[in-house]
Amino acid sequence: MAGIRGLFIPGPTNVPEPVRRAMDIPMEDQRAPDLPDFTLPLFHDLKRIFKSEAGQVFLFPSSGTGGWEAAITNTLSPGDKVLAARFGQFSHLWIDLCQRHGLEVESVDCEWGEGVPVERYADILAADQGHKIKAVLACQNETATGVTSDIAGVRKALDETRHPALLFVDGVSSIASIDFQMDEWGVDVAVAGSQKGFMLPAGLAILCVSQKALAMAKDAKLHRCYFDFADMIRTNKDGFFPYTPPLNMFRGLRASVDMLLEEGLENVFARHHRLGEGVRRAVAAWNMKLCAKEKRWHSDTVSAIHLPDGFDSNALIRHAYRRYGLSLGLGLAKLNGKVFRIGHLGDLNELMVLSALGTVELVLRDQGVPIKAGSGVGAAIEYFHQTGTALAVAAE
Amino acid sequence: MAGIRGLFIPGPTNVPEPVRRAMDIPMEDQRAPDLPDFTLPLFHDLKRIFKSEAGQVFLFPSSGTGGWEAAITNTLSPGDKVLAARFGQFSHLWIDLCQRHGLEVESVDCEWGEGVPVERYADILAADQGHKIKAVLACQNETATGVTSDIAGVRKALDETRHPALLFVDGVSSIASIDFQMDEWGVDVAVAGSQKGFMLPAGLAILCVSQKALAMAKDAKLHRCYFDFADMIRTNKDGFFPYTPPLNMFRGLRASVDMLLEEGLENVFARHHRLGEGVRRAVAAWNMKLCAKEKRWHSDTVSAIHLPDGFDSNALIRHAYRRYGLSLGLGLAKLNGKVFRIGHLGDLNELMVLSALGTVELVLRDQGVPIKAGSGVGAAIEYFHQTGTALAVAAE
Amino acid sequence: MAGIRGLFIPGPTNVPEPVRRAMDIPMEDQRAPDLPDFTLPLFHDLKRIFKSEAGQVFLFPSSGTGGWEAAITNTLSPGDKVLAARFGQFSHLWIDLCQRHGLEVESVDCEWGEGVPVERYADILAADQGHKIKAVLACQNETATGVTSDIAGVRKALDETRHPALLFVDGVSSIASIDFQMDEWGVDVAVAGSQKGFMLPAGLAILCVSQKALAMAKDAKLHRCYFDFADMIRTNKDGFFPYTPPLNMFRGLRASVDMLLEEGLENVFARHHRLGEGVRRAVAAWNMKLCAKEKRWHSDTVSAIHLPDGFDSNALIRHAYRRYGLSLGLGLAKLNGKVFRIGHLGDLNELMVLSALGTVELVLRDQGVPIKAGSGVGAAIEYFHQTGTALAVAAE
Amino acid sequence: MAGIRGLFIPGPTNVPEPVRRAMDIPMEDQRAPDLPDFTLPLFHDLKRIFKSEAGQVFLFPSSGTGGWEAAITNTLSPGDKVLAARFGQFSHLWIDLCQRHGLEVESVDCEWGEGVPVERYADILAADQGHKIKAVLACQNETATGVTSDIAGVRKALDETRHPALLFVDGVSSIASIDFQMDEWGVDVAVAGSQKGFMLPAGLAILCVSQKALAMAKDAKLHRCYFDFADMIRTNKDGFFPYTPPLNMFRGLRASVDMLLEEGLENVFARHHRLGEGVRRAVAAWNMKLCAKEKRWHSDTVSAIHLPDGFDSNALIRHAYRRYGLSLGLGLAKLNGKVFRIGHLGDLNELMVLSALGTVELVLRDQGVPIKAGSGVGAAIEYFHQTGTALAVAAE
Repeated sequence: MAGIRGLFIPGPTNVPEPVRRAMDIPMEDQRAPDLPDFTLPLFHDLKRIFKSEAGQVFLFPSSGTGGWEAAITNTLSPGDKVLAARFGQFSHLWIDLCQRHGLEVESVDCEWGEGVPVERYADILAADQGHKIKAVLACQNETATGVTSDIAGVRKALDETRHPALLFVDGVSSIASIDFQMDEWGVDVAVAGSQKGFMLPAGLAILCVSQKALAMAKDAKLHRCYFDFADMIRTNKDGFFPYTPPLNMFRGLRASVDMLLEEGLENVFARHHRLGEGVRRAVAAWNMKLCAKEKRWHSDTVSAIHLPDGFDSNALIRHAYRRYGLSLGLGLAKLNGKVFRIGHLGDLNELMVLSALGTVELVLRDQGVPIKAGSGVGAAIEYFHQTGTALAVAAE
Repeated sequence: MAGIRGLFIPGPTNVPEPVRRAMDIPMEDQRAPDLPDFTLPLFHDLKRIFKSEAGQVFLFPSSGTGGWEAAITNTLSPGDKVLAARFGQFSHLWIDLCQRHGLEVESVDCEWGEGVPVERYADILAADQGHKIKAVLACQNETATGVTSDIAGVRKALDETRHPALLFVDGVSSIASIDFQMDEWGVDVAVAGSQKGFMLPAGLAILCVSQKALAMAKDAKLHRCYFDFADMIRTNKDGFFPYTPPLNMFRGLRASVDMLLEEGLENVFARHHRLGEGVRRAVAAWNMKLCAKEKRWHSDTVSAIHLPDGFDSNALIRHAYRRYGLSLGLGLAKLNGKVFRIGHLGDLNELMVLSALGTVELVLRDQGVPIKAGSGVGAAIEYFHQTGTALAVAAE
Repeated sequence: MAGIRGLFIPGPTNVPEPVRRAMDIPMEDQRAPDLPDFTLPLFHDLKRIFKSEAGQVFLFPSSGTGGWEAAITNTLSPGDKVLAARFGQFSHLWIDLCQRHGLEVESVDCEWGEGVPVERYADILAADQGHKIKAVLACQNETATGVTSDIAGVRKALDETRHPALLFVDGVSSIASIDFQMDEWGVDVAVAGSQKGFMLPAGLAILCVSQKALAMAKDAKLHRCYFDFADMIRTNKDGFFPYTPPLNMFRGLRASVDMLLEEGLENVFARHHRLGEGVRRAVAAWNMKLCAKEKRWHSDTVSAIHLPDGFDSNALIRHAYRRYGLSLGLGLAKLNGKVFRIGHLGDLNELMVLSALGTVELVLRDQGVPIKAGSGVGAAIEYFHQTGTALAVAAE
Repeated sequence: MAGIRGLFIPGPTNVPEPVRRAMDIPMEDQRAPDLPDFTLPLFHDLKRIFKSEAGQVFLFPSSGTGGWEAAITNTLSPGDKVLAARFGQFSHLWIDLCQRHGLEVESVDCEWGEGVPVERYADILAADQGHKIKAVLACQNETATGVTSDIAGVRKALDETRHPALLFVDGVSSIASIDFQMDEWGVDVAVAGSQKGFMLPAGLAILCVSQKALAMAKDAKLHRCYFDFADMIRTNKDGFFPYTPPLNMFRGLRASVDMLLEEGLENVFARHHRLGEGVRRAVAAWNMKLCAKEKRWHSDTVSAIHLPDGFDSNALIRHAYRRYGLSLGLGLAKLNGKVFRIGHLGDLNELMVLSALGTVELVLRDQGVPIKAGSGVGAAIEYFHQTGTALAVAAE
């Protein structure tokens, strides 16, 4: 079909042109004498994205799921207990992964659309006098429901109960898009992926690990080799890797980190908030409901939107893709058929958001969903106009 | 700035991914023994785009202006008379070029917003009993005003007056987007450019020339060498060129011709009409006026839109570019500051048109132009929905 | 520095232009309704590369090391015994990986430069009446020493002793370059990587697994989740993946599989043999010795070459890289400083091999190694000429 | 066929990766408000390549032939006399172009293999007391024969005879590869093309024009429009163009100019000399003769090499292309079938030259030409080694 397709799933996200170009290179020598001149500064600058000075960054050729696996196998032993909450497909899958690696998971089930239950966590931690819980898991942004959780609150719960458990954060769909503060929040392992805020293809798990977690690795008995921190530490310190690294991805990552730092992380977060809010204004104008139950949980990277009863979101998404080249996110697991998701993260601007909203309206009309054409787009435009004027004046 | 920019000028147009990829190749050998296997079928298929069996296609490394120059220098002699109409910046420039090459131009001045004055042409041709007029010029699509002219009508005027003048058509912003029929309309030289409907960067003038015009070349006394048809004919017949050709552009052209033929020319034209009409519905919803004075002149490749009095279209275009990464066409010459142009040709779809309309609305709001946000986008959506349902059903 | 660099390490290998172009695409929707139309045929055709009808192919976003891990964790349980041989750095690392996952390794140490000790394997298997050995590991091509082993021989040893152990083959630097016959040789897990014969960047482990091995997965007690076959089987059957796949790599893989099948696997193998033999002729002309101790072990994908005593191969490799942009393989582990390696696999032809040999000669001269300039290149040319004439005649 | 092809024709030359990447971009807005921030510094830096402060640079979308046409049509009038020498196909074609534009050419015919006959020029200019000669043409590097001429000598001849004629230089295959000094040598129009030393695809004529020549434009009566300097001057001064410019080529040109200036022009020239001399050493070792008759005329960008009697260079070139993917230059016009040309200009290094020489030897052996395999490559290696040691030491 003619024209540019619209990719509005919550990852993989659009790869910016400078990142594409940086990746489109002849293959390189993974043991070149000058490779460290490239890799060492990259590791350094990645820490700035995590807002960490004390931590260490790891780059595993894998998806984010591999990052979850690296987090637990390097720090825990069979039978160790972890605390986790299940409120969406991805928080569910991380729990599943822990169980399959022989961990005992104390799992708090929440309604889908809620975030990490900070108060429940606090109660459980307070009750765990024997410190059987070795790690607390928190999904900063549940991609399935468009819910952002309060990681600082989880840290507070740990601190107030003086609980020594490690804090693991799944930041795959938040880091580099929504504020994340590794050191300030005392996060021990943060897991990000290349294909969301880092604006790259899938294929890299990007972790930042605290010194406390690294120290745990010595006694961690879970088997590991591919995802072993120690092999990485030994070779990364000289700028190399324990096995053939995907150098083209690293070249792309360099470009993406440069773009993030040039725009400024706080500007990146503000842009995501502004664009996400534009989408929410449109949803409100359509008289539809977000999956996220409360404003504090609204995600600036993805909105999961309930279709009115009687409409099938799978049919809508299929129609959008086949007829207009627009990719929207499916409803996952128990939300399947009921919600569609608009990903609004990564290399995004007003023009792109308006293209998505306009085309969603066209799709809704085609599917017979009762909305007024132009209503959602108009609400977003009006929001962008009202909040952007000062900025516009400044820019000229 | 973040995100994809919006290129909605009437050329150069967006280069489709397959064309980009086809061009991004290591440099090739311009005299490779197998080059003719590539070039000869390309020439053949280009004729299908012009709807010509009898004509011959030429590829000059130049802009469309070079194509105009090739048209006249190969067929005319100093002092020859040509008939032309001036109703926009590009029809004006072609006249200027003729004069600078020593031709005498009988120029009909029209209001900008009108098309080729077919009746006036007929009168002039009828009066030219001595057949002093050697060529009639017609701009099929005046890019400056968004006006499409009736080329079949010009042919009819020539036929009815039994006038032997050559018919030259500037199809730079129409060919491959709006129906053009070389043989059926008896066009003698058609000039197209790579950067519009052919969806390539600028750099190629693409001409189709009738046998009648080729025969004229023998006696044409205007000086020429770079743009000489004869040198091309001599080398092209074996698949080669008289000087180093831009092979990467030819590879891209192959991809673009393949895309056009795969979609089907009539489908390409229908798509342009549908998308152009969507834009016109939005303009109407904004209560603005097109530069094109009558419906029969509405261009399916570009709309020139009058801003209400008191607003400066240059400021609007600058704001759109700087603040939102949206490129719109300037008002040219006497229209400068008064109109802005939306190019809607080439590799385009509903999603892209809606992105342009939505962002134009945002820009209009920012500039204080009194429109209701969502009105134009909504009108376009509604038009796309109403006219697309049958198609949508068929596609699934 | 000016000009094209020469990448002659044994992986990552040169990425062919069609593969580069196939990968350089806007990001795609990992759950697009038409994705299976792409992925299912890809899985099918990959089996042809492994010469397997009965097996199942898996694509893990990881390096080849991850492929080793997938092989054992899906089929074995803690404490299981495996038989392996150590005759180079990569056969060593696979043994190490097994041990770190809690397996008991019966390891046969060989001299570096020898291949899998088929007779020793046969003796050990014969002696293992209780079938304690659950899997036999064999490295088809030891990249560190340039040694190719006899996998059919290992199968014969298993068959003759009627031993039920699984046969695991590391084919990372052989599959798609040197003949490999999954079904014929009764291989149970074959591990390949994207960055060698598949001519892609690093980032994919490509496995083919027999039904016998898949059946073992049910009772295999080693922990796994990221590398779990079952999750892949469940989602791959519909053309999807259990976590975000690197779609750009898959697009590249499609292009590379197409190239391999178009050339024809037997032609690919013959080309590798011819080019490898050209390198060996040059080595002989230089009066140098290969690391591979016997002709039957000569690798057609990489040659490890001993420098004369008194010369430091690290200095030579560094000089080649810095001064001439030529990348050669380091001597690894106990071979460090003593050998340099020329990778001659993947997207390679005579012109490229001659560029490497010529530049190696220049580097040898610069380093004071006593060779006659032109001797090795000349020997390779003469070999290519003598063996290529028939082919050359046929091609014209 | 597998592997990288070898492009060793004297243009188009290999496009370096940074230039390819710079060109592979989404299409841009030719009237963007920030375009001048890009174009004005580009014009400025191009003057550094021509070694001109006083001149003005022009970029025409055309081949070098268009550059020749621009040179004469902007400065001369019908019937004007020019002095030129014919000693190869390209010097011949420029003369032909002048004649077709109505100029009177005083043409000095030389043997092919000689350069501009400076003494003959001096005699003719001295004899032209009435200053009928308005322009003197000199081809700095005759691509057909591999001959470089003495432009400073031509200037000297003009100065010594106090002749006011303009000096036009065809530097298409020399500028940016061989020293060229616009101001120092008093050149009035220098014509370069994108596809040689500028390492871009064909498609741009790059001119530098003296103030003296610009002043002539006012009275020059040759017809021109597409190639008119005045239209360019009027729009270029603000950073824009009179017709749609090939912006992707300009982006590539920016990258190429950056590469040239970063390497340093004198280093670029020295590299070309070194690599060209390596080729000449090989030719001598093969006991073959260059077309260039004397050492002072040896071209550092292309060598035209006579095959021994009884061999057909067309067959050799065809075999090299079809069998090994090596492109060599044909013998042109009267040299057809007798010589083959090795282009050694642009983005080139020792490794690439050795790949060409090695493959040429293989081709010569296949064709039965009596040479010893390795002899030419060895001679080049030895030359590179002997002359490169000091440099090599310095670089590490």
